[in-house]
Amino acid sequence: MQSFRTFLASGKTIIFDGGMGTLLQARGLAPGESPERFSLRCPNVVEQIHRDYWQAGAHVVTTNTFGGTRFKLGGDVDPVEMNRIGASLARKAVGDKGFVAGSIGPTGRMIEPLGDVTFRELVQAFEEQIRGLVQGGVDLILGETHFDLAEARAVVVAARHVCDLPVGISMTFEEGVSLTGTSPRVFLDTVENMGVDLVATNCSAGPEELLVAAKEMLAGTRTPLLVQPNAGLPELVDGKTVFRLDPEAFAVQTREFVRAGVQCVGGCCGTTPDHIRALKAETEALTPTLPEQSAHPCIVLTSRSTSLSLGFEYPSQIIGERINPTGKKDLIAQFQNGEITRALELAQEQVDMGVGALDVNVGAPMADEQELLPLLVRELASRMQTPLCIDSSDEQAVIEALNVYPGSPLVNSISGEPGKMERLGPLCRDYGAPFILLPLKKSKLPVTAAERIAIIDELVDQADSLSIPRRLILVDALALTVSSKPLAARACLDVIRYCREALGLTTVMGLSNISFGLPARELLNTHFMTMCMAAGMGAFIANPNSQRLQEALAASEVLLGRDPQAASFIDRFSDWQPKGGTLSPARKADGDVEDVGRSSI
Amino acid sequence: MQSFRTFLASGKTIIFDGGMGTLLQARGLAPGESPERFSLRCPNVVEQIHRDYWQAGAHVVTTNTFGGTRFKLGGDVDPVEMNRIGASLARKAVGDKGFVAGSIGPTGRMIEPLGDVTFRELVQAFEEQIRGLVQGGVDLILGETHFDLAEARAVVVAARHVCDLPVGISMTFEEGVSLTGTSPRVFLDTVENMGVDLVATNCSAGPEELLVAAKEMLAGTRTPLLVQPNAGLPELVDGKTVFRLDPEAFAVQTREFVRAGVQCVGGCCGTTPDHIRALKAETEALTPTLPEQSAHPCIVLTSRSTSLSLGFEYPSQIIGERINPTGKKDLIAQFQNGEITRALELAQEQVDMGVGALDVNVGAPMADEQELLPLLVRELASRMQTPLCIDSSDEQAVIEALNVYPGSPLVNSISGEPGKMERLGPLCRDYGAPFILLPLKKSKLPVTAAERIAIIDELVDQADSLSIPRRLILVDALALTVSSKPLAARACLDVIRYCREALGLTTVMGLSNISFGLPARELLNTHFMTMCMAAGMGAFIANPNSQRLQEALAASEVLLGRDPQAASFIDRFSDWQPKGGTLSPARKADGDVEDVGRSSI
Ligand SMILES: [Zn+2]
Ligand SMILES: [Zn+2]
Ligand SMILES: [Zn+2]
Repeated sequence: MQSFRTFLASGKTIIFDGGMGTLLQARGLAPGESPERFSLRCPNVVEQIHRDYWQAGAHVVTTNTFGGTRFKLGGDVDPVEMNRIGASLARKAVGDKGFVAGSIGPTGRMIEPLGDVTFRELVQAFEEQIRGLVQGGVDLILGETHFDLAEARAVVVAARHVCDLPVGISMTFEEGVSLTGTSPRVFLDTVENMGVDLVATNCSAGPEELLVAAKEMLAGTRTPLLVQPNAGLPELVDGKTVFRLDPEAFAVQTREFVRAGVQCVGGCCGTTPDHIRALKAETEALTPTLPEQSAHPCIVLTSRSTSLSLGFEYPSQIIGERINPTGKKDLIAQFQNGEITRALELAQEQVDMGVGALDVNVGAPMADEQELLPLLVRELASRMQTPLCIDSSDEQAVIEALNVYPGSPLVNSISGEPGKMERLGPLCRDYGAPFILLPLKKSKLPVTAAERIAIIDELVDQADSLSIPRRLILVDALALTVSSKPLAARACLDVIRYCREALGLTTVMGLSNISFGLPARELLNTHFMTMCMAAGMGAFIANPNSQRLQEALAASEVLLGRDPQAASFIDRFSDWQPKGGTLSPARKADGDVEDVGRSSI
Repeated sequence: MQSFRTFLASGKTIIFDGGMGTLLQARGLAPGESPERFSLRCPNVVEQIHRDYWQAGAHVVTTNTFGGTRFKLGGDVDPVEMNRIGASLARKAVGDKGFVAGSIGPTGRMIEPLGDVTFRELVQAFEEQIRGLVQGGVDLILGETHFDLAEARAVVVAARHVCDLPVGISMTFEEGVSLTGTSPRVFLDTVENMGVDLVATNCSAGPEELLVAAKEMLAGTRTPLLVQPNAGLPELVDGKTVFRLDPEAFAVQTREFVRAGVQCVGGCCGTTPDHIRALKAETEALTPTLPEQSAHPCIVLTSRSTSLSLGFEYPSQIIGERINPTGKKDLIAQFQNGEITRALELAQEQVDMGVGALDVNVGAPMADEQELLPLLVRELASRMQTPLCIDSSDEQAVIEALNVYPGSPLVNSISGEPGKMERLGPLCRDYGAPFILLPLKKSKLPVTAAERIAIIDELVDQADSLSIPRRLILVDALALTVSSKPLAARACLDVIRYCREALGLTTVMGLSNISFGLPARELLNTHFMTMCMAAGMGAFIANPNSQRLQEALAASEVLLGRDPQAASFIDRFSDWQPKGGTLSPARKADGDVEDVGRSSI
């Protein structure tokens, strides 16, 4: 039998199964009884439900292991064994004629600081569950009905640690966001960064309501989608939850997902083998096609609630550089005492200035980075929507920070230092964290564009060989100092163009180096930024607290056609006057020459 | 016999003849007698002098027609006939075994406003002389001992009008400049724009002193050079001018020119066939090689005293736009009265702001452009060193202005209007006037880069077929309005790159259109300029009276590596403070992060 990945790649409509809970109740699950334990008590019933779905036409049946982590099962059960049994029932039901998805629901616990468990504890619990599912013979791992982005990420990370099976992950949204504030698009961006095989939404409402969430994902996805609606909105009738959509109505409405481009459909609460049979009949003849996505490269950072795209077709962003103790006595003193209040202030100030992301660097002498960096990252993530950039040369501190961040942070950076890519690259890949590729090696400083390009090519090849996707790579164009190296800025422009045109990669840069040792550095930094924006750079690590820089950013966005109707620019600059004054002699009341081509034609 | 052009292209050292005056006096020319009239009285003597030079080894002998214009000959002689006879004597002397250069010296009259003749009168007089020289059989036209750039240009223009023979033009410099203020480099740039075959310097001093001028020309030339020194510095001995260098000393010193790359050498005052014989012996075995010149395209504007190179390897320039009546009531009123005082003020203000060139547009309703444009151009040319840009849609006005300007002005512009290139193109070619190629046709406005590039390609092909060299073509990238066409700025950037990379052409643009209809236009214009500079644009037609624009220009020059040691920038901005103020919240005393690659390696 072909693998599930091969089947997915065929592009055909794939039918998943429907609800488990209602059928279990109808066939003997006692009120309050754990559905997973029911698999031990009445294995034949569970197996028959799987078989019913398969016979109804489902290509994929889903294990009865939704609550199968140690957090839900309780201490008296071996989660591995429980999940192995759950998986093997499904396997037995469909034999080698159907696919088995190993279901993983939420643990019921929240990650710190929302709750009391750590990301690592979640990952460990999911790893345990997944080991059992794999032993029981599942074809793919399917996280279902998740409502917190961090927990959903933990499922994916755990799956990657345990096996090479395809991974699907499904979130449930109420009125456009998950319970902890994640929109379908942010969810999509985050799990696409993790390279999942299937992005999904399920439950929460009937097909009509789910279509909004599905369309939000369809607008941006390059990954196949799975949608599993309930059989209509749940209603309370005589104290019992009921779902009103009959099989035919459910199937007709769910068919619309396939028409819109969703490849995989099934049902959730209230759906039965009859719903699936009707769904199959309605969708079998359709060939779903994902909407065409922009061919322009970009990378996407996310927080729990926000996505930030960096690339030539997106507005350029300032990554606020000020949470960095270099040269800041107050920050150094606080970090040495394990305090972060000043850093939180700096974050807020920069967010108020409109930065797209915040660089977080706690690298002060005598400060415990491995303690401090995750602490600050966790606090920032819970207070602000702005995505973070984890900036440290301490690899263990980076790992600790990755484990507390709920979205896709930027890792700053992976250089050509021996072993760095091998150590940090796979971590960024599994956590879906884009990283800054820094074209520096211990040896000679790469002054020319050609020298930098050689290192970039080498590191990108290395990333390729570690299966790190290009969408996670943001190249640092490396601003050297123009006062000592007159062609430093030109070299950056060449690197930006090379990355964009030859490699399809977006670039980033710390701006301030370029002007080191010169007066009026703000002018040099600002115009350098404008040049780099036009060449295609996506983001700048800089101090946002500069009038000139903000002017340049806003004006350049208009000029690059990325501020529609110049609305943002007009909003901010309609009353602008050149406070810098004019040069003498004083400006006269000259008219402008507006006519195209002047008077020459 | 091969043509002189073919002989020149062989790259071999070419020997010209030596002085004529001393020999004529020794052989019978009476004190005060016209040397040209002596050709009628004693043709055999003149013929024998030519023969002596030829037998001494000169490849080229020069006709005894140095003072052969009607201005010097007087009204009782037919200049055509006189020059025909002079040329035929040389021809007879060398037969088809040597080349004859038709000598054309200064008229002794100065062009307005320095003197009382017009450029057209000079051209007509030279045309008359050249017709005679051609009838007498010369192989090339050689203007000699010129000291005013306008008059030298008149010789070349006249030669182009009369014949297709190769043209050489020689200027004489005293202590680094000609009598009316032209340096060897400005002379070279101006006549190279006219496409002369041979650029020369002669007379004034001996070989050692001429080497400075020759080296200044060698540093920039792509055209073969001719140097004809005197036999040392002239000295007065017993009331007579004598030249002290004997043939061997002259030959040894003159050999240095050939070693430096000068292909053609001969002698001027005080040199004799013996000097030429010695010179030939010293240089025969040498192969002169011109120094390698930059491969980067540029165009060069000149005034009588200044050269301005525009191209990616040269500082970008502002072409001051303010002498333009559009929207200026005071200027319109003056132009309607034939007055230019306000225009002269605007010129001075813009020169004080550091513009590289001045756009001159007098196109006000009811103003007589054909009268006013040459008047203003002549006045500006005599008052300022800044090269001019002749901006008019009235072709006759452009022609009148070209006739009064002493250097290589920029013509603004030649569009795709039917017949425009055919009418103005050859004029610009013959006058050595670079022009702005404006990619507009009467039909549809070319909004996309591709549409513009198609027109540019078509016009460049047309220019090629008219033998207009690329070094005269400056392409207008055509700034449309970004508020109505969001990709207008990007299209310009694409056009700039295309011109630079595919056509080897430099670009220019009027800046202000881009921001039409938007607030804070200065910001948009400024950052657009920075983007265009980085893409390779050479000049901007703009109002220099903008602090932001001046900041951008200075900063961008540093960033593009064209302000050595950032000296100009430091000079102007060492005390700069951001008068525009910072954004709230107030700037804190943050340190900078200078270390390359931050802390990540
Ligand atoms: Zn459900
Ligand atoms: Zn002389
Ligand atoms: Zn002479």
